[in-house]
Amino acid sequence: MQFVAAPARLSTVSANFEADFAARLHWSAEQDAAIEERVAAILADVQARGDAAVLDYTRRFDGLQADGVAALELTQAELKAAYDGLPEAQRDALSAAAARVRSYHEAQKKACGESWSYRDADGTLLGQKVTPLDRVGIYVPGGKAAYPSSVLMNAIPAHVAGVPEIIMVVPTPKGEKNPLVLAAAHVAGVTRAFTIGGAQAVAALAYGTATVPKVDKITGPGNAYVASAKKRVFGTVGIDMIAGPSEILVLADGSTPADWVAMDLFSQAEHDELAQSILLCPDAAYIAAVQREIDRLLPQMPRAEIIVKSLSGRGALIHTRSMEEACAISNRIAPEHLEVSSREPHRWEPLLRHAGAIFLGAYTSESLGDYCAGPNHVLPTSGTARFSSPLGVYDFQKRSSLIEVSEQGAQVLGKIASVLAHGEGLQGHARAAEMRLK
Amino acid sequence: MQFVAAPARLSTVSANFEADFAARLHWSAEQDAAIEERVAAILADVQARGDAAVLDYTRRFDGLQADGVAALELTQAELKAAYDGLPEAQRDALSAAAARVRSYHEAQKKACGESWSYRDADGTLLGQKVTPLDRVGIYVPGGKAAYPSSVLMNAIPAHVAGVPEIIMVVPTPKGEKNPLVLAAAHVAGVTRAFTIGGAQAVAALAYGTATVPKVDKITGPGNAYVASAKKRVFGTVGIDMIAGPSEILVLADGSTPADWVAMDLFSQAEHDELAQSILLCPDAAYIAAVQREIDRLLPQMPRAEIIVKSLSGRGALIHTRSMEEACAISNRIAPEHLEVSSREPHRWEPLLRHAGAIFLGAYTSESLGDYCAGPNHVLPTSGTARFSSPLGVYDFQKRSSLIEVSEQGAQVLGKIASVLAHGEGLQGHARAAEMRLK
Repeated sequence: MQFVAAPARLSTVSANFEADFAARLHWSAEQDAAIEERVAAILADVQARGDAAVLDYTRRFDGLQADGVAALELTQAELKAAYDGLPEAQRDALSAAAARVRSYHEAQKKACGESWSYRDADGTLLGQKVTPLDRVGIYVPGGKAAYPSSVLMNAIPAHVAGVPEIIMVVPTPKGEKNPLVLAAAHVAGVTRAFTIGGAQAVAALAYGTATVPKVDKITGPGNAYVASAKKRVFGTVGIDMIAGPSEILVLADGSTPADWVAMDLFSQAEHDELAQSILLCPDAAYIAAVQREIDRLLPQMPRAEIIVKSLSGRGALIHTRSMEEACAISNRIAPEHLEVSSREPHRWEPLLRHAGAIFLGAYTSESLGDYCAGPNHVLPTSGTARFSSPLGVYDFQKRSSLIEVSEQGAQVLGKIASVLAHGEGLQGHARAAEMRLK
Repeated sequence: MQFVAAPARLSTVSANFEADFAARLHWSAEQDAAIEERVAAILADVQARGDAAVLDYTRRFDGLQADGVAALELTQAELKAAYDGLPEAQRDALSAAAARVRSYHEAQKKACGESWSYRDADGTLLGQKVTPLDRVGIYVPGGKAAYPSSVLMNAIPAHVAGVPEIIMVVPTPKGEKNPLVLAAAHVAGVTRAFTIGGAQAVAALAYGTATVPKVDKITGPGNAYVASAKKRVFGTVGIDMIAGPSEILVLADGSTPADWVAMDLFSQAEHDELAQSILLCPDAAYIAAVQREIDRLLPQMPRAEIIVKSLSGRGALIHTRSMEEACAISNRIAPEHLEVSSREPHRWEPLLRHAGAIFLGAYTSESLGDYCAGPNHVLPTSGTARFSSPLGVYDFQKRSSLIEVSEQGAQVLGKIASVLAHGEGLQGHARAAEMRLK
């Protein structure tokens, strides 16, 4: 069978550009009412019946039978055995990746996750105390999209933040366990792990059951049921974000070997049919060269079928008037992954306002960032980089304001507070401030 | 009419303590299905019909008729006129509060909101770039809970973060405008303001209409409809948090004048009937003294009726075995506002793990923090301080990871990534890394 991957060819000088661009970009995060309703029922059931409900859904959805939820817990010995049983190259790669991810997140904690305070001249102290969450749940997808790297990317920042208890859930349909996932849980220092998944696992973590401890926050990607469940329990617990399909945008000036860029587009397209790969480039000849490399390399790819569907359905090669225009279009997309495949990445980087992660220069393939460069690979998708950030140490910490008003400070602040409180009709507030006046 | 405020009297030595404590604490954030359904319909309608739908709902719910949404925009001149028209004391208090809030948030930005990066020995660069959001919407409640201080607390952090466009919405039922709210918008530097509210205002900000610009994030408190709408548009835009009833917890060692503490409890109770005021203290005689002050001061309070309902319905004076135990109970509650009314606040502060804001020492009444100490008064409620933080500059920024792998770095990282990618069955990822190997 002959595969043809035909990403849309757009040009910003075309009269139809805006319409074509909008059509390609369109992806609706709209909620499916049927899924919402089923998820609401599962959450209510787990909240009411606890372990028994979790067992029922695990049997029904994962084809996995157990006498109790305790039987679905993976022991530390089992996690370690999975690690010990890996081929040496995988063990080393996992450990090396974990070490780099850890050291990046340690730097992140130093840069933006420490407590701070200062004193006014009158002795009044103001600041913020930063503390780790007590207990977090990380959701790791099972089945065909079981990614051990996601275990590292979720658990390590929690660990670096200082979270004492990290509870992992991972569905194991028909009981099939992925040894790399278990090994990653060992390397990342997961506290407890359960082979449960879906909305029922989210519910167990959010409300707690006799066996699964209630957590303070749930992070990690999942399918539509998991996403809907996370959104619904938001408020009872914290959540990270709602992930859409993965995306890559390559900004190219034509200086990177065309086959490298073609493969970078594949590396996103191979995730799933809805994944989006886009190339923005002012050089038409280079775009043609990338398409030729796509055609040449495609038959070599084991996941060619998915790549074809993704590139032909959602991919685009966009010819722009200039690199500046390419940067402007990239900002409209706010991509999850943004490669600046240019000889002058630092010339363009300041123009790039919205992206989950920015990969600078030809050597920085997205896949290096996905696994082991150090930064987190859990990134905002579907344009949400406009307002949200990579998963990080800050997601596993929270802040408490610190205020200590001195006797002298209270004389000044009390008068201001009193005027404003009376203005809002809150006399109790005003009196509380006035009582501190001499 | 004689009011009696009777907060529950609990003691940790009592056999019933756990049950009584749980009953007092109980507050359900459960969603009301009827509200959810109506909000979903309003959101869909505004998304479909834009301005026309906003006008319809504004007429229906706020009794406010207009020819178009443009007629509901407040001009900068109108905001300034409101400020100029205030009594001098209010004008000065508003400006002084704004200056202190601004300087605290500037310190916060320096402490935790700047870009950072480092290079590995092989030249590989890793870091994060921090950028402000492009455009945010702030929701300011109207009617009886119209708080100008909330305008400052939402708009100033956005301004300090560097957000270029701040869009305020505030309902004005029957067209009644609160001059202090308008003046606060002037002082805080709001870019545009519309007199719309409810789910329809949230929808207008989230989806954009012909007149109201689409924003990237919506912050600010509101009623059940606003909360439900914010939760529903989360993902399309960012949101801050879902606010529940306000709470104060006072940890007292008995050294603060009892009338100060009584008034601090009132200052929370006067917000609304669901507000919660709790005193934790190891000194039974002091608790009795506070109750006497409650009885003495209550008749002087214009909002006595609300205070009585709040204190009798949800308030508690809890006698503990020790200050240590009081701290442990406080951590279970994770209060929004936590006063450490002690001679030794710094002795207890390290034991306090979960709170929105911690007020240290007898002079630091919550009301000083509410208006003008500097820290934000938008704080996590209903125990969500376990996993979330005060509104801050960080809520108006987002982060993009920066990765620049050197040619040399790619040789090391490429091999690790290749092994892990093959392990996950993602050959495109592996090949993209391998292509960068020499």
